[in-house]
Amino acid sequence: MRKTQRKLFIVFDGPEGGGKSTQAKLLCEHLKQKGYDVVLTREPGGTKMAEMVRKIILSPRLQITPMAELLLYEAARAQHIAEVIAPSLKENKIVISDRFADASVVYQGYARGLGMKFVETLNRLVVGGITPDITFILDIHPDEGLSRIKNRTKNFDRMEKEDLEFHHKIREGYLKLANRRKNFYIIDVNNKSSQEVHDIIVNILKRKFKL
Amino acid sequence: MRKTQRKLFIVFDGPEGGGKSTQAKLLCEHLKQKGYDVVLTREPGGTKMAEMVRKIILSPRLQITPMAELLLYEAARAQHIAEVIAPSLKENKIVISDRFADASVVYQGYARGLGMKFVETLNRLVVGGITPDITFILDIHPDEGLSRIKNRTKNFDRMEKEDLEFHHKIREGYLKLANRRKNFYIIDVNNKSSQEVHDIIVNILKRKFKL
Repeated sequence: MRKTQRKLFIVFDGPEGGGKSTQAKLLCEHLKQKGYDVVLTREPGGTKMAEMVRKIILSPRLQITPMAELLLYEAARAQHIAEVIAPSLKENKIVISDRFADASVVYQGYARGLGMKFVETLNRLVVGGITPDITFILDIHPDEGLSRIKNRTKNFDRMEKEDLEFHHKIREGYLKLANRRKNFYIIDVNNKSSQEVHDIIVNILKRKFKL
Repeated sequence: MRKTQRKLFIVFDGPEGGGKSTQAKLLCEHLKQKGYDVVLTREPGGTKMAEMVRKIILSPRLQITPMAELLLYEAARAQHIAEVIAPSLKENKIVISDRFADASVVYQGYARGLGMKFVETLNRLVVGGITPDITFILDIHPDEGLSRIKNRTKNFDRMEKEDLEFHHKIREGYLKLANRRKNFYIIDVNNKSSQEVHDIIVNILKRKFKL
């Protein structure tokens, strides 16, 4: 089948346990079946170097200050953009990323207290003009999100193992940021099946981008 | 022996192969013998997290963009300061570091082309007011520096394996930066033994800080 070229950058973001990676995969399969050339990736990660940085960031036994954590995310991001996202968009592909730069605005800027504006400034220096065409925020109550993670694994990573207050702050941060972002789509995923959420996403993309 | 408390931050920096780590060790031993409480550390490194980042940075097989490289150094630096340098200075110890923030100004700012001013701005955000009291630049001709490294190892790291032009640029960067730094002491180490260089350093510290 001849592939349909379409340049589009789609991001899934939001609190832990909202089903970002599941939805990213489902959307990738859906768009591939429709003949699109799709690259599925994730942050932090997507390149060899960035996956090594990911291991450091998520390692539950390491001491990492908020500033060091932010800089690790930004380092992984810079490499991810240079090696994967920018070249794929240049080749007119659809890029789907599980998290992107705004996650740092919420996690390190808002929840860790470094300041949302400060992180946005740093992001601008790092992303070099690459911004998502649309960001789906999979919104979930922290209790529900953490209980979903508990069902998935016994080994929480360094971010997942933060206390409930932190996860409430994360959710608050995303909703705060959504007020200032035109291309954020908040989807309430509480009490919805993966298929129901997927259908909502597909409908939004059909309406907005005729995908 | 009762330890003499003295708060001082001493940095060794300069091109590859100038003998920074050798001189840092010699000075540490010298000051310890004089009864001072001394912490010897290095950059990138000095903490568990930063040593993991060091492995990524120096891995000769990894693709790393200049921006990602800078952010990795800054991440390691932030953690190194928080865990080692700041607490040691607070306890009135002498901290000797093999490289520090100005290395990024030269390597990523000047040689990699990100801009010295840009890196200085980022450094200021990361170091949180921690600056060396004195920096010894061990100045060596790149040919001589690289031949010393060749005698030491067959496995060049990602920085050492850069071409001669890059190493010339590094040397040029340090000399350029020295014009703007009051507390830089450039020591010509070409054709000097470790002991000769050590004696020069000890004399400067005696004169300047009565150590």
